[in-house]
Formats: sequence, C-alpha cells, structure tokens
Amino acid sequence: MDLSLADDFLAKLQPSVAWVDDHIEIIDQTKLPTELVVVELRSVDEVVDVIYRLAVRGAPAIGACGALGLVVGLDERHPETVADAVATLEGLVDEIGDARPTAVNLSWAVKRVRDAAAGGTDAADIRSRALNEAQRIIREDRDACTRMGLYGLDELAGVTKIMTHCNTGRLATAGWGTALGVIYAKAAAGEPVKVYSSETRPLLQGARLTAWELHDAGIDVTLMPDSASSTAMAGGKVEAVIVGADRIAANGDTANKIGTFTHAVNAKYAGVPFYVAAPLSTFDTSIAGGADIEIELRPSHEMTMWRSEPTAPEDIAVWNPAFDITPAALITAIITEVGVLRPPYEESIRAAFEEAHLD
Amino acid sequence: MDLSLADDFLAKLQPSVAWVDDHIEIIDQTKLPTELVVVELRSVDEVVDVIYRLAVRGAPAIGACGALGLVVGLDERHPETVADAVATLEGLVDEIGDARPTAVNLSWAVKRVRDAAAGGTDAADIRSRALNEAQRIIREDRDACTRMGLYGLDELAGVTKIMTHCNTGRLATAGWGTALGVIYAKAAAGEPVKVYSSETRPLLQGARLTAWELHDAGIDVTLMPDSASSTAMAGGKVEAVIVGADRIAANGDTANKIGTFTHAVNAKYAGVPFYVAAPLSTFDTSIAGGADIEIELRPSHEMTMWRSEPTAPEDIAVWNPAFDITPAALITAIITEVGVLRPPYEESIRAAFEEAHLD
Repeated sequence: MDLSLADDFLAKLQPSVAWVDDHIEIIDQTKLPTELVVVELRSVDEVVDVIYRLAVRGAPAIGACGALGLVVGLDERHPETVADAVATLEGLVDEIGDARPTAVNLSWAVKRVRDAAAGGTDAADIRSRALNEAQRIIREDRDACTRMGLYGLDELAGVTKIMTHCNTGRLATAGWGTALGVIYAKAAAGEPVKVYSSETRPLLQGARLTAWELHDAGIDVTLMPDSASSTAMAGGKVEAVIVGADRIAANGDTANKIGTFTHAVNAKYAGVPFYVAAPLSTFDTSIAGGADIEIELRPSHEMTMWRSEPTAPEDIAVWNPAFDITPAALITAIITEVGVLRPPYEESIRAAFEEAHLD
Repeated sequence: MDLSLADDFLAKLQPSVAWVDDHIEIIDQTKLPTELVVVELRSVDEVVDVIYRLAVRGAPAIGACGALGLVVGLDERHPETVADAVATLEGLVDEIGDARPTAVNLSWAVKRVRDAAAGGTDAADIRSRALNEAQRIIREDRDACTRMGLYGLDELAGVTKIMTHCNTGRLATAGWGTALGVIYAKAAAGEPVKVYSSETRPLLQGARLTAWELHDAGIDVTLMPDSASSTAMAGGKVEAVIVGADRIAANGDTANKIGTFTHAVNAKYAGVPFYVAAPLSTFDTSIAGGADIEIELRPSHEMTMWRSEPTAPEDIAVWNPAFDITPAALITAIITEVGVLRPPYEESIRAAFEEAHLD
C-alpha cells in the first residue's frame, strides 16, 4: 500500500493541526465557513483555549493538538532537571486533558506523550521525546486515514457520485479523514468524484465544514438539506453513501451523528450501498449491539437559535439527539485501516481484532 | 358531521386572516416565532404588501386575504355608480392578483369575488355581495378543513403520538388546516395528543410556524431535526405521520415539501402508518403520476444563510429542491373533505371526484 498518495495530496493544503518550527498551527474552525483563519499556539493557555472553545474539533484532531500541547508547555516553562520536566509533564496532562474532559482521545494522547517522554535522560531529551511521540501520534492517525482511503478506493471502484453526512475529513483528523478520506483518495488518484454533502442539522457540520473542506481541496461538492436524501437517491444523484462513526458495537451496529440512520434507511429503500469508514479504535466490542448504547440528548438552544438568529419559539420543547444507531443490517461494509469488514459483522469484527492483536 | 367543533376551538385563537368590523386582520408570519404581531389592513397597498412580503402565506390564507382585499379596495376608493364599482373591482383583481402571480388560489379567489359582486344593483349592493362572497370563500375553506379533521379523528382513533412536517395548520388556511387539522380535531375532542414537528429545512416552517401555532393552541409539541425521524419512529415516539400536499397525481403520488418522501420511507421501514391530508382542490387528475411533476429548485441563499448568519460557504454549489414526490405505495391513506381515500388510489380518487361531481 503506497501511503505517499495522501502525503502528496495533503502537502498542498492547510492541515487542521500541525507542528511548524517551534509552535502549533491550527485552523480555527469556529471561523469557518466564512474565513480560513490559521492560529499559532505558543502557550498552554492558548492550547487549552482552542480545545475548549471548539476551534479544534474531531477526536483525532483534538488528540493531536493536545499531544503537541505538551511540547509547547515544556518550551514555555523550560524545566531544567529531569524531575522538573516530569513534574511539568504531569501538570500539563491534567491542564490540557481537562480542556474537554469527555474527549477520551485527548486524555489518551496526552498520557501517551507523557509516558514516552518521562524516560528521557535530561530535560532536552525529554522535550525531544515528547515532540517525537506527538508526531508519531499524528503520523499513525494520518496513516490509518490513508489506509482507509485506499481500501475505500478499491471498494468503491467505478463509483463517482457519493453522498456523505456530518464532517469526517481533514478538519476532524490529522490526515484526510475517515469517510472523506475515501473521497480524497479518489481525487488524489485522479478519479472523477462528485459529492453530495447533507448539511447536518442542527450544528451544520456538513454545510460549514465538509462543504468548505472539499471545496477548498478543489473537489466537486454540492450541499443539500438532510431531508433531501431520498430524493437524491431516487433521482440517481447518489451511487454510494459513506459516513464515519462515533462508536461501533460488536455486531456492527453503528452510533454516528443524528441523520445517519435516516440516510441508511433511504439508501436501503433506493438500493444504494451504504458504507461506514472508521478506524479500529472506534469499535467497542464490549458492547453487544446498538440497543446498549444510550443516546445523548443535546441542549434545545441548538435547535431554537442559529448564532444570533431565532429559528423556533424560545420556550418550545425540543428533542435533539446527538447521534443515532444504524442497525448493522443496513450497512453494506465497514472500511477500516486493516481492511473492509463485511456481514456477518460479529465474525468479521472479531477476526479483524484477532489479526491486529487487539483482542 | 358536527362542524361546530372547529368553530368553538378556533374562537379562542387569533386567526391568520379575518374580517373585523371594517378591516382585515392578519397575523404577520414574518414576525414569528418571536412575537405575535396582528396587522390591520385598511388599504389596497397594505393588502398587496402583506401578500408580497409573505406576511400572509399558505395558499388558502392568501386566497382569503386577497378576497377580503377587494372589499378593502371598494371601501377605500368608494365608487358611486355600478359602472365605477365594476371597473374598480376589475382593477383590484389585477392589482391584488399580481402581488403573487404564481399563487393560483389568490387569482381564483379575487376573480370569484369579482364575479359574485359585479351583478349588484348599486354600489352598496356590490360592496355587500363582495364581502359575502369573500366570507363564503373563508367559510368553505374552514369547513373543508373541519371535515378533514373529523375524518382524520375517526381514522386515527386511539393514536396519541403523531409526527408532522412543514406547516399545514391555521396559519396556512382560513380554518384549522389540513394535516394539523387532524391534530386540532383530537385536541378539540378532548383526546390526548403529543406532536413531533420536524423543523423543515431550509425555511424551517416546522420550527417557526408549526411549533409556534400548536404551542400557542396549548397542544403538546416537541421540535426535532428532520433527520431524526427514523430514530423517533424506531424509538416508539411516533404512532402515525401526517402531512399535507402541494399536488396529488391521479395515482396518489404526492408532491409536498422536501423531506416528506424521506419521512415516508422511514415510516415504511418502521411500520408506522403515513397519512396525507389534503382537499380535493389539491388533486390534479390530469397528471398520471409523480414522474410527470417537475421538481422546482429554490435559490442557494436559503441554504447558505439563516437571516443575517452564514450557514455554509457563500459560493458553494447547492441543490435545494422545493418539494419531493412520495410514491403512492408509501401512503397509508389520503384524508380529504369528502372522506378517506385508500389504495388503489386510481380508483378511490376517481370515485371521490365522480361523487363530488368534479370530474
């Protein structure tokens, strides 16, 4: 598998998170879609701030920013002894990890950098090990995305018209993304690709982020209302649907942004294949099936206001589920970094974990 | 059929359009959902203005406003002879009819008032006939809505949890509406009813108007994203879906607000009955099936801006279909003012038109 396809493609584009010379650069996603603002981070306060206010979002992108944040912290506080450096790292793990306490990827990434760096022989070695480990986390995420993209490229050979939902691309990861990675792989391979992005109410990640990042990368993208998916499919505008995942159960049931299940039902009705693209870290094989996943409810103001403008009566009752559960029976295949998993998913997921020695 | 149920229920609520003493009163729907503003219309300019800027919307409500507008015009211009009055009516038909040239109901209503009034014996008689005919148009629309509501009350006996889409209620008609009429009938009959209103992107009629009008009438309504319909149905929150219609073909295929087809597919998947409520005037039996209906595309700014706030990149390609076509096979029954039509629709629609002597 030639992973350089993604590196060459991404080299021309601003990454969501990167280490540049002696600082972090991020795209401030709160300024999208109206302007591309790149922010330089040179202090722990700045790192915490961009994570807290969602200027960086998407689990892998947050993890990457947090990991690099430990290097910024060491440079800012310049401990001189090993003991000082280890204590500094320990403080940074809490400080940066607490910027978004529910982001498990953030907590995992900062601890991994701390663990790798703490064995350094002096303060400079510790700093060097921290940067190496943070870069390794970024490289691993990028490579996992690339592999998913390349497996998807094979799987969706000959498919030109693709629909996606929410944002699962280079804004959300350190690479070219999961579901959008398959689309970027097609573009990188010089294949024609035409994308329909559903806007993804209520937070409009499809409209604000996916439409922006594909357009910015020169890919033919058209925005549509979430509720138009059946008409798009019935009218032949869509040959395949591909989405990401928040969590996948042992039987393949998939939790993902609200609307995913609705698109999957419509794809089944129209006879359009429906793919999930997600790394093995997204699978939770301790969960037997989707019925065991509790659906988080989000606050009503997301539905009653759009920024400064009212969209509904202020005092109305709102049901705003963060995600839904797509039954495995509606999923054609799950594209991972170790290959394409097919039904029956209990078996293919178990086999993938055994082969990757993750069971 | 006891039509007073609707009259009693509506008497407590502000109507979308009404004649009060010597003027028209309308709800300014552009001010919803933030405030209920009632505007008094005493000049033709004011009538044209509220129709043009969509302060009055919904085909029957526009027709009612236009019909009453001819009375306002006669009072404002006070012609003294029969010839003057007839010429005034003729001018008003053009002036008011042109406020929204594509609104066939508006043009039909103003011509009907003109035709009824023109035979008057003097100017006062012409004015009196015009007001009577406008009131008759309003009464006929109100009664058709009431009949649909009462047929729906029977059809949905025992159903408590109902989902609807877009706005088809008292804001859109001179009565309690079509699909919402069934919900109002349940409330008026003292039956428990819990409504899920999908917000209806991009113009959010479900959020701004349906949620407002049901809440204002004391009905239990919960707003949800359009894309949550599959999850609502799978989770047992919805026992029936009921929607209105823009146009119904001879075979029952139904054109309605974008998202209707998607909800119908999801209802089929979940085993939830899916109803359309629409008067016979909505049927176009010259159209064999939905494939013959061209889908109107709306401008991209509806998807890229919400009032003053951007929602997507300004220059993005947008596919914004105004409505979709729900195949008759997905529709459990169509509730009309002459009864409930069932599959096969070619036959039941033909029979309804024959019986109503409309064929």
